[in-house]
Parts: sequence; structure tokens; C-alpha cells
Amino acid sequence: MIVTLLTDFGLRDTYVAEMKGVILSHSPDASIVDISHDVEKFNVHQGAYFLARSIDFFPVGTIHLAVVDPEVGSARRPIAIETTTATLIGPDNGLLFPAAKALGIRRCFLIENKTLLPQHISSTFHGRDIFAHAAGYIASGMLMNKIGREISDIMTSNRSEPRLSKYSVEGAVIHVDSFGNIVTNITLEALNSVGANFGKPLRCLIDNKPIGKLQLLETYSKVGSGSSVAVIGSSGFIEVSINQGNAAEQLGVKRGQTVLVEVE
Amino acid sequence: MIVTLLTDFGLRDTYVAEMKGVILSHSPDASIVDISHDVEKFNVHQGAYFLARSIDFFPVGTIHLAVVDPEVGSARRPIAIETTTATLIGPDNGLLFPAAKALGIRRCFLIENKTLLPQHISSTFHGRDIFAHAAGYIASGMLMNKIGREISDIMTSNRSEPRLSKYSVEGAVIHVDSFGNIVTNITLEALNSVGANFGKPLRCLIDNKPIGKLQLLETYSKVGSGSSVAVIGSSGFIEVSINQGNAAEQLGVKRGQTVLVEVE
Amino acid sequence: MIVTLLTDFGLRDTYVAEMKGVILSHSPDASIVDISHDVEKFNVHQGAYFLARSIDFFPVGTIHLAVVDPEVGSARRPIAIETTTATLIGPDNGLLFPAAKALGIRRCFLIENKTLLPQHISSTFHGRDIFAHAAGYIASGMLMNKIGREISDIMTSNRSEPRLSKYSVEGAVIHVDSFGNIVTNITLEALNSVGANFGKPLRCLIDNKPIGKLQLLETYSKVGSGSSVAVIGSSGFIEVSINQGNAAEQLGVKRGQTVLVEVE
Repeated sequence: MIVTLLTDFGLRDTYVAEMKGVILSHSPDASIVDISHDVEKFNVHQGAYFLARSIDFFPVGTIHLAVVDPEVGSARRPIAIETTTATLIGPDNGLLFPAAKALGIRRCFLIENKTLLPQHISSTFHGRDIFAHAAGYIASGMLMNKIGREISDIMTSNRSEPRLSKYSVEGAVIHVDSFGNIVTNITLEALNSVGANFGKPLRCLIDNKPIGKLQLLETYSKVGSGSSVAVIGSSGFIEVSINQGNAAEQLGVKRGQTVLVEVE
Repeated sequence: MIVTLLTDFGLRDTYVAEMKGVILSHSPDASIVDISHDVEKFNVHQGAYFLARSIDFFPVGTIHLAVVDPEVGSARRPIAIETTTATLIGPDNGLLFPAAKALGIRRCFLIENKTLLPQHISSTFHGRDIFAHAAGYIASGMLMNKIGREISDIMTSNRSEPRLSKYSVEGAVIHVDSFGNIVTNITLEALNSVGANFGKPLRCLIDNKPIGKLQLLETYSKVGSGSSVAVIGSSGFIEVSINQGNAAEQLGVKRGQTVLVEVE
Repeated sequence: MIVTLLTDFGLRDTYVAEMKGVILSHSPDASIVDISHDVEKFNVHQGAYFLARSIDFFPVGTIHLAVVDPEVGSARRPIAIETTTATLIGPDNGLLFPAAKALGIRRCFLIENKTLLPQHISSTFHGRDIFAHAAGYIASGMLMNKIGREISDIMTSNRSEPRLSKYSVEGAVIHVDSFGNIVTNITLEALNSVGANFGKPLRCLIDNKPIGKLQLLETYSKVGSGSSVAVIGSSGFIEVSINQGNAAEQLGVKRGQTVLVEVE
């Protein structure tokens, strides 16, 4: 059984390893894959984006355990979601929702069966003391309804959607990757709907600042090294990049800024 | 068989991967889990703390391989320790001792059987050329006494213990985690013994500087975002934290500083 | 089956995890080992060095998947190389060549069988949409000749070789590791051929600056803490180190600089 992990815990501390130890204690043959542990601390939205873009690439039956949990120890509920192809486990704070919705939600459960959890549950590390136990038991074959009662009111959250005008699209920078690629929430369909297409020059303003000439092309290497280009990134969204350079650094762009794209 | 790895090698270089290759060469079905590779370079104490706090969460029979080894290539001995529930492998410099002592030491062995080791042993990378071979062989089922003779004089090291006065506890900052949580060596029992308890205001000085009003509470979210709080961390020790903030950065606190806690 | 991964993708983003998901979709029992994901962005030479030094330590039959791919989406070809002991998969840009040559190249194949690849292949992430599929299929037992036609003209690249004079060797800094060890491309044999040997004082200039007295010794701890020393590193090359210090930082040395070693 494959279990993926997504957290904002980093890899310097032993927190992720302790979660893995717990999972393997229940399910010694689990194959554990790290999605990322470098989600920005407490950034539930970034965690949700990372999870939603990764899930499609894992086999049917995968268990995804995600913990970005600024309200740990409070009344926010620990949940498990059964979707058409995977199980998602984590805090009920919207982190799991975009991924679960994309896969198709079947049933949601509260993680509350105390006989499955350690006698002493730390109030600061539910990743280890609640979620990893739930993931380990489910990986070992336990039925979902053994972990707690079914619920129907989980917290939702959605990706921000771009606004379409007649000749322009207004979206946002949802991520800057380690190459400096500027990932927007604008799809090719959105661009097409305002008349933009491959090869056509675009006018692009990020945070209201024009970022020079830009063409939507198939890949980075269609422009010279050091030139900027718009591409359809591997997540299906438009990305602004600099061939073999760091676009976000060179253009001074940060996550959260607005993106306005118009056909020239 | 589960084999964990703890080093100060970092993950940019290929050193950790080379160790994994060696382990898998002897034990192809081993499930290898990284505890941390970002122990501060040469900091045997931090490595010992990381190892000791993680071991409890792994299944019985796990093999823990740890290498923080400033004296590599010198006369310090390579050892393997059989405890009641796990096997520990690494340099005899105190790194393994706190974890081994907590689990209950049964027998200690020198790693010296040359027929198990490569013909050429680099003098700078025993992690790969000695320890990983020993771990791989033991993971494959080899008996401990095949790797060398039993010894009884391994190097000890202990966690520093806080000093208790009638109305105060004096301890130390033993770790700052990636969230900025300030981990002390003070337990709840120690605090209780000087009259402190949940909900009571505490006076706390770190490095002789008062760090403002502080209550011992169950979890971060019992105070407002940005407020400081003392909690029982997931290692069982008192931690000073700022809810959704970085306590160590904002309070200017570093590992090794003294911590004085008094009941107000 | 063991599959190793080497990229310049970093571990913050989800790119590496998406590749792992694809591999496990084809080969659920694959044991995936990260060699490094912190190759300097676009640095094919560093990637080739990391791969070539690691491969020897993995069992026969291992599949090595490496992606440092500045020309992704262009005409550069995706290839798989069968060597005497391992399979190498990645872009045909020289990245795989030094490792493949060291293992002994048997046959090379183009990855071109479209029935094995997803219908939509992103033009910016062949690591996931081409290479991971090829690795997953080969890990699951597929014969190499099913992935595409055999080719004989793959791109070569070689480690830079030092130049030997009568009394000196001129080489280069090929890597600085996370300890600050300065890895050169000079072997012990090269040093011996100009009369240098263990214990003899050496004169060493890096980037034309003398770096003080230096002896070739067996290991760091043969000199006092803080003193510089030359050792035979774990890759078989001469390294300049400072015992328990960071040589590259303290001596101001960077990758790519020239290294001149003379017998005093």
C-alpha cells in the first residue's frame, strides 16, 4: 500500500520520521512517499495546491496523509475522506478539500475511535499521534467506518478562479517554484476565450507592473537563454518563465500578486 | 526489515544515497527511513537528541544507523548495540548512548569482521564503507556476534538534566525546531515539583533575559495568534512557543542558552 | 526492483513526488532511492558527477533515472542505456554518459514508443511524462527494445582530466560538498606520478592563490581541529579539507577553480 505524506514540518527535525515510524508500526509493508515537507509554515492554501496537483499521478488506492495544521489541539476535527480512487487523511481545515473534490468525494469520517490511538495524545503533534495512526490502520486494511462516525459537513476551500473580461483575464500567482517559474491560476482555455493562443504576443501585468514582451510558446527552449516566455506548465496552468533563468527573482514577483493578461 | 538513517551529511551530496545503495546490496527488501540528515555538522549531542526522541515510534526490530562522526578515521570504534527492541549502529562517541539506554542495552559489539567489509575502506566515509555494510548484513538476518567481539565499555553521554530549587527550575535550550519552538530539557514533573502547573502564570528567563508573561497551556491555539505560550512538546519537554509565530527568532533565543522557570 | 532518482528539481515542489507516483503506478513494488535533487539548476556536469560517483554502490539491476534537462521540450532525445550492471534513463545531453561509460555501455535506446506514454505530454516536465513512465515500465520487467529503436550515437561528455608536468599536477575543483570539502579531479596516482605521497608536504595553489602548508594524510583527524589537510576523499579524488571546519568557506574556494599541486 502506498502512503504519501505532505506537511509543513521540514526535514531537519524528526517529526516526519516519527510519523513514518507510526505508519510502519501498523503497516510494515507500506511504501511511503514524501510529496513535500516544505509547505510554507501554516500555509493551508499552498498545501492544498501541492496535494491537488500531485494526486493524479499516484496509483488507485493510495492513501494521502497531509498535515498543515495551524489549529492543532483546538476543536478543528481530524478527518478521513474516501474518494473514488484514494483516501485522504488530515485536519478538517480545507487542506484536503480541493484534492478530494477533484477525485470525487464518496464518504467522510471523523477520526475518533480512541482504541486506535495512543493513550497519551500530545496536543501539539496530531500528525504523529492521530493522523499517522489512522493512515497506518487504513494502510493495513482496516475499514474506514472503524475509525469513527460518518460526517457530511467537512470544511471546503477552493482554488481561486481567474476573472474573464472580453479581452483580458485577471488571475493570481498561486505558486513560485524552485526554478523561479511563476505559476498562475489561468488555464489555456481561459486564455483562448479572450483570443490568446500559441505564438500570439501577450501583454502581461503582474502586480500592475508590465513584464515586457511575452509569447505563449510550447516550451522554454523556444526562446533564447535568458528570455521570458509564457508556457502551459506541468500543472495545466499558464506559467511565466525565463529560459534557464529565475523569472520570479528577475521580475520581482511573489506568490499572491495579481496577474492581468491581455492580447496585444 | 526497517533501517533508519540519521547523519549530518545533508541531502545535497550523494553520501546518504551511497549508504542506501550499500544497505540494499545486502538486504534488497529493507525499508529505509530517513530520520534526519540535517543534524548540525559534527554536533553529536544534537544527533543523540534526534535519535533518542525518534526511536520509540518505530516497530520492534528496527535497525537504527546513525553517523555524526567528527573523529572518522581515528581510533574511535565502530559499534553495534543490541537493545531490548532495536539495534543501533554507529561510531562509539556517545551518539547512540541515550537512545540505547532508553531502550535497554543488552549487548554491544565491535564492528571488526573484515570479511564483511570492502577491501578498500575510505578513511573519511565509514558511514558508507563500514556502518552501512554492518546495517545491511544485520538487516539481512546476520547474527550480531558475527560482526565482531562483544565489548562492555562503550562511550556514554547523557542528556543534560535541569537543576531543581525550591521555587524554580534551571534547565537549558536543547533544540530549536524549524517552527522556532524553543525545546528545553525541563519536564512537566520538574515544573510540578516547584509548584507550577497548567494555567498558572510562570516567570521565565532565557539567557538571563525575562521573556514576558507566560502560561503553561495545553496547546498553542489556547493563546491568540502571535502570543507566547509554554506547552508540553511532543518530546515530553516544556517548549516555549509563539502561536503561529517563530518564538526563537522573535525572542532571540539559541540552542544551549540557560532557561530559568519560576512560579510567579 | 530499485529505481534511483537524480534531478535538479529540489524537494520543496511536488515534481519529484509526481515522478515517484508515475513509477509506482507501473511498478508498485519498486524501491525508490533519491540520489540527490539538489543538483545546481541546469548543471549537467554536476549531475553527471553525482551519478557517476554513486552508481557503484547500488546492486546489479538497479535502474537510475536522472533528469537535469535545460533543453526540455526541444529536439534533445530521451534515452535509455543498458550497461553491464544497470539501466540508465534520462535526456541525451551527456548527463548519463560518464556513469554509463564507467559501467560499460551495452545498448542504447530511444524512448519513443507512444503507447507507453500519456496522451498529453507536457513540454516542460519530461521527467514525469516520459522518463518516469520508461523507468516504471522497465522496473516492471519490460524489455528495453519495447521502448524504442536502438541508437548508437548518444551524446558523450567526460570528466575533466588533470594535466601532469614533471613536478606538478594541474587539475580543477569539481565539487564543494556540504562540509566544505574541496573535491578535485586529481587522483592519488596522479600525485604519485609527480613524486607526492602520504606525509610529504605539498604546495597547493587554488585559483593561483597559495593555500598554505598542506600534507596528504589518511584522514582529517590526523591534523588538529581547524587545520587544513589533503586527503583521498570517498570518491577516490584528492580533497582539501579543514578538520571539523569548512575549507571552501575559509579558503574562499569555489567549484570550477584551478588546482595546482607541487611537491615542496
